[in-house]
Amino acid sequence: MEELLEQIIAECRPDIQKGAVATYIPELAKQDPNDFGIYVLSSDGSHYCAGDYLKPFTVQSIIKPVLLLLALMDNGSEEVRRHIGVEATGKPFDAINVSDKSLVSEHFNPMVNAGAIVICSLIKGKDYTERFERLLDLTRKLAGNPNIDVDEAVYRSEKSHGFKNRALAYLLKAHGLLEDDVEDVLDCYFRACSIRICSKDLAHIGFVLANRGKTVRSETRLFPSEFARFVNAILVTCGMYDGSGEFALRVGVPAKSGVGGGIMAVVPTRLGIGIYSPALDEKGNSIAGIHALELLSKRLFLGIF
Amino acid sequence: MEELLEQIIAECRPDIQKGAVATYIPELAKQDPNDFGIYVLSSDGSHYCAGDYLKPFTVQSIIKPVLLLLALMDNGSEEVRRHIGVEATGKPFDAINVSDKSLVSEHFNPMVNAGAIVICSLIKGKDYTERFERLLDLTRKLAGNPNIDVDEAVYRSEKSHGFKNRALAYLLKAHGLLEDDVEDVLDCYFRACSIRICSKDLAHIGFVLANRGKTVRSETRLFPSEFARFVNAILVTCGMYDGSGEFALRVGVPAKSGVGGGIMAVVPTRLGIGIYSPALDEKGNSIAGIHALELLSKRLFLGIF
Amino acid sequence: MEELLEQIIAECRPDIQKGAVATYIPELAKQDPNDFGIYVLSSDGSHYCAGDYLKPFTVQSIIKPVLLLLALMDNGSEEVRRHIGVEATGKPFDAINVSDKSLVSEHFNPMVNAGAIVICSLIKGKDYTERFERLLDLTRKLAGNPNIDVDEAVYRSEKSHGFKNRALAYLLKAHGLLEDDVEDVLDCYFRACSIRICSKDLAHIGFVLANRGKTVRSETRLFPSEFARFVNAILVTCGMYDGSGEFALRVGVPAKSGVGGGIMAVVPTRLGIGIYSPALDEKGNSIAGIHALELLSKRLFLGIF
Amino acid sequence: MEELLEQIIAECRPDIQKGAVATYIPELAKQDPNDFGIYVLSSDGSHYCAGDYLKPFTVQSIIKPVLLLLALMDNGSEEVRRHIGVEATGKPFDAINVSDKSLVSEHFNPMVNAGAIVICSLIKGKDYTERFERLLDLTRKLAGNPNIDVDEAVYRSEKSHGFKNRALAYLLKAHGLLEDDVEDVLDCYFRACSIRICSKDLAHIGFVLANRGKTVRSETRLFPSEFARFVNAILVTCGMYDGSGEFALRVGVPAKSGVGGGIMAVVPTRLGIGIYSPALDEKGNSIAGIHALELLSKRLFLGIF
Repeated sequence: MEELLEQIIAECRPDIQKGAVATYIPELAKQDPNDFGIYVLSSDGSHYCAGDYLKPFTVQSIIKPVLLLLALMDNGSEEVRRHIGVEATGKPFDAINVSDKSLVSEHFNPMVNAGAIVICSLIKGKDYTERFERLLDLTRKLAGNPNIDVDEAVYRSEKSHGFKNRALAYLLKAHGLLEDDVEDVLDCYFRACSIRICSKDLAHIGFVLANRGKTVRSETRLFPSEFARFVNAILVTCGMYDGSGEFALRVGVPAKSGVGGGIMAVVPTRLGIGIYSPALDEKGNSIAGIHALELLSKRLFLGIF
Repeated sequence: MEELLEQIIAECRPDIQKGAVATYIPELAKQDPNDFGIYVLSSDGSHYCAGDYLKPFTVQSIIKPVLLLLALMDNGSEEVRRHIGVEATGKPFDAINVSDKSLVSEHFNPMVNAGAIVICSLIKGKDYTERFERLLDLTRKLAGNPNIDVDEAVYRSEKSHGFKNRALAYLLKAHGLLEDDVEDVLDCYFRACSIRICSKDLAHIGFVLANRGKTVRSETRLFPSEFARFVNAILVTCGMYDGSGEFALRVGVPAKSGVGGGIMAVVPTRLGIGIYSPALDEKGNSIAGIHALELLSKRLFLGIF
Repeated sequence: MEELLEQIIAECRPDIQKGAVATYIPELAKQDPNDFGIYVLSSDGSHYCAGDYLKPFTVQSIIKPVLLLLALMDNGSEEVRRHIGVEATGKPFDAINVSDKSLVSEHFNPMVNAGAIVICSLIKGKDYTERFERLLDLTRKLAGNPNIDVDEAVYRSEKSHGFKNRALAYLLKAHGLLEDDVEDVLDCYFRACSIRICSKDLAHIGFVLANRGKTVRSETRLFPSEFARFVNAILVTCGMYDGSGEFALRVGVPAKSGVGGGIMAVVPTRLGIGIYSPALDEKGNSIAGIHALELLSKRLFLGIF
Repeated sequence: MEELLEQIIAECRPDIQKGAVATYIPELAKQDPNDFGIYVLSSDGSHYCAGDYLKPFTVQSIIKPVLLLLALMDNGSEEVRRHIGVEATGKPFDAINVSDKSLVSEHFNPMVNAGAIVICSLIKGKDYTERFERLLDLTRKLAGNPNIDVDEAVYRSEKSHGFKNRALAYLLKAHGLLEDDVEDVLDCYFRACSIRICSKDLAHIGFVLANRGKTVRSETRLFPSEFARFVNAILVTCGMYDGSGEFALRVGVPAKSGVGGGIMAVVPTRLGIGIYSPALDEKGNSIAGIHALELLSKRLFLGIF
């Protein structure tokens, strides 16, 4: 199996040339496009890895399913549904997805920025410091890694360059869809996106979703299985931005990508997979990462359709 | 099991009050909202049914996955991908999904009208009569029912009221996305939507998709398994119009609905399900039908996420 | 004065290189980009001309103000206002100016195709042959030229290539904004656009609008002055497609252009101007024609602002 | 003449019932809908007034032509044109007028909020305090009233409720269309909108535009006549928000309205008119104010078309 992973990395490495690391904030532009790591965690407890699977990078949008999970745990699915939508938007991740008339909560899927910003405001806590601490704590528990923390340089970079997210948040505020102070909510969101993880961490988080709430090492249930199904369903329809349909055809499992170069894939009941390869296609997905998952899916018959 | 189906029908029947039969063409408005049928076909060959499962109705949009299948069989997936898109559009089924600048084939998912009209032009045949005959033939084979035919009254009604589909088709033509004569293509499309089937037929068609190309009765493969995965993946992301995300959460299986009141559900490797209940919600999906599938999914653990 | 016109033609002739004749129908592509004519008709009865001012070309969109005028004469301004809008659309002339929800008559300005198609249906007549004859008759009277007629080759070319106009018309039909048979209305519209005129004709038509209903030669009033003000006001805000704002700055008079290469300008109380130069800018306006009007406006202080 | 103004006020007063004062910030909601003032300043130096023509209110969007004028005076028309557009947008004044792809400066007319925010950044000054002081100074000179100042309560209210303007400004920033600090620019913009004027002041400002750069009392030219023509042309196509086309038909002169209830009308070479009546129609224009201008235009033949 590890041989297979090595083969896949070798086969997909040329794709890196066709993509480019994110440059919208200076810190992300510093990533090495040649880093390539993959980690697979199986329900029988075994794990397989290859390449730079311990290389840290920022989680970026892959925190969105964790944010959603915490909001579900804090509020239940009915309350969460009242604030966000679950339909694919047909738009890029950071779309100002509006005509003025139609800015209603049901247009904001939690896998696009506007929806994720709203989700931040649904997390419980006496202030946004506590809310963020609770998110970080859940991330550590899911990953089974207490050392996960924020990349302060990326966080500062996000915060000082996040003009479009500010535009989105003020728009939500203007339409009464965000009750709290915009800068407070955004600070939590920028911190969340700046959490530093590695492929191994992503595989563990993905595994808990695949295993519907239980970690691989224990029988402790972190959350009800219905919340895993909720998150996985949204990942299939919207996890890979406006490349989700294509990904469903080529790979066929729930997954979430981030512009940091990571992809977390969920193979229900079977596997959690974490991949890192920071060269992105024009939709913001790791170009070699998607190819690697496609090969892995074909060879291990992972597709759920 | 049939008792379960009866219970489900009883539990969902009150939903009919909350919906309404389609009225955009006079013929559909004649449907009896109280008809309710369900048919389940299992991979072990057994089948279960309840209610009006032999009641005929027009297939409408549920022909779209069959059209896609035939186009895949005639052209292969690469050629089909060159003409259509696979991303969710975030729009209703008959949306004029355009700004003028962006009318390119990748915006036309084959599960929305514009994409399905393009798909008609990809089917092989010396003329549109032959193309339609080949579609009807495939439909009969998938359903194992040689008596399936067109509802001529619905066809004529569609043809004389199909102004929006004409607008869509001329728009495709204006942008060079449709080579053939608009009225010829539309005639084929209107006939396709007017094919009359019943819940049992839908269950059989869905079963072949669940069984990845083989019918229940024989080991004859009707099409390669990769085409079933292709169709099923698109059904998950776009099969229930702009209610697909919600359906993924509540039911969690590939499915396609039609404004005739039918739903075809595909439970990969396990079941094909056909439902008929013509009262629709505002998105054009059978309101009691979705509820029935939700209950069935919960009680039989059908969800694939 | 004629010397001034000659100078202006000389000064603007190099602009022709920067534009291109319309090619969306084969017949228009045959125009000679070097043709350049200008005709000015003054309220004191004098006229001035230069270049190819008798060269015939098709009126195209410049028929829109005449269509509007006839609809106003047939129905009064209140009834016309019930069917069309008067706001600038901020879109190109042939825009499918819709999200599905917002297709209401008030979005269809009579200076864009959709609005002009609706206007055709407001003209009185027992059938569309009679309606068109009445339009042609009014055009001849306004121009004081009984020989004006349809360019049959352009008409056939428009009719066989008018896919986008068909899309627009079927969309209007689908939304209940067009009562009559789509092909009948479009036939009238295609004929109207194919009327062949020359710069001199345009100057005469523009003069009647400048003179608020009266021709230069007689005291006969063709229509009430309020209809001239209605048309002129719409010309200022929308007559030059989505280049109307720029034109208001540079020239500052009501005007209408057509993709046939003509521009009709209206200098209230003073002049009617007709120009022909078929090389168009990317918005569909005669590139040298606009420049010529700018120079004329500056030298004769024509701007109304 | 003053009798005519009294008659017009009496005739239009019932319209107030059909409108409502602006409520988007609490301070504006305190306005008395029954206030109604009108002031007309003629090129022969005479003036006529009626009603509450000295009642102060905030200028709101009517500052936009003054902002544009100052930007023209500071940069010339070519440089201004590089940063803003002049086409009607077909959208409401505070529209988030974008799809993501199309956010380019040419979409931002200086008569809509986004364009006016960009215009603030074109005014010269060592900081935004100085820029605003120069704007206030120009406003006082145009109105011939050195006592014009900011309504601090409205300013604070705008600043604390301006979420949508913040969204717009951050969007401009995200697309590289705004160089300076967003909060600095917005502070200047919010102050500008909060300048307190009366109908008499508006009539004087409008008169300088009508008189193409010269005040009524002196022969001092405040700005070149071409800048007046520039501003007046934009006012005709866009001054009354998305009611500009209707206004051109009904009144037929350049004008600008503000949600504070004011309208400034410009009758080239003849009159400046200021009106105050704070009940607005649904497009944000003074409902009785437009009617009053319509009557005045009809009775004094003011229309320029």
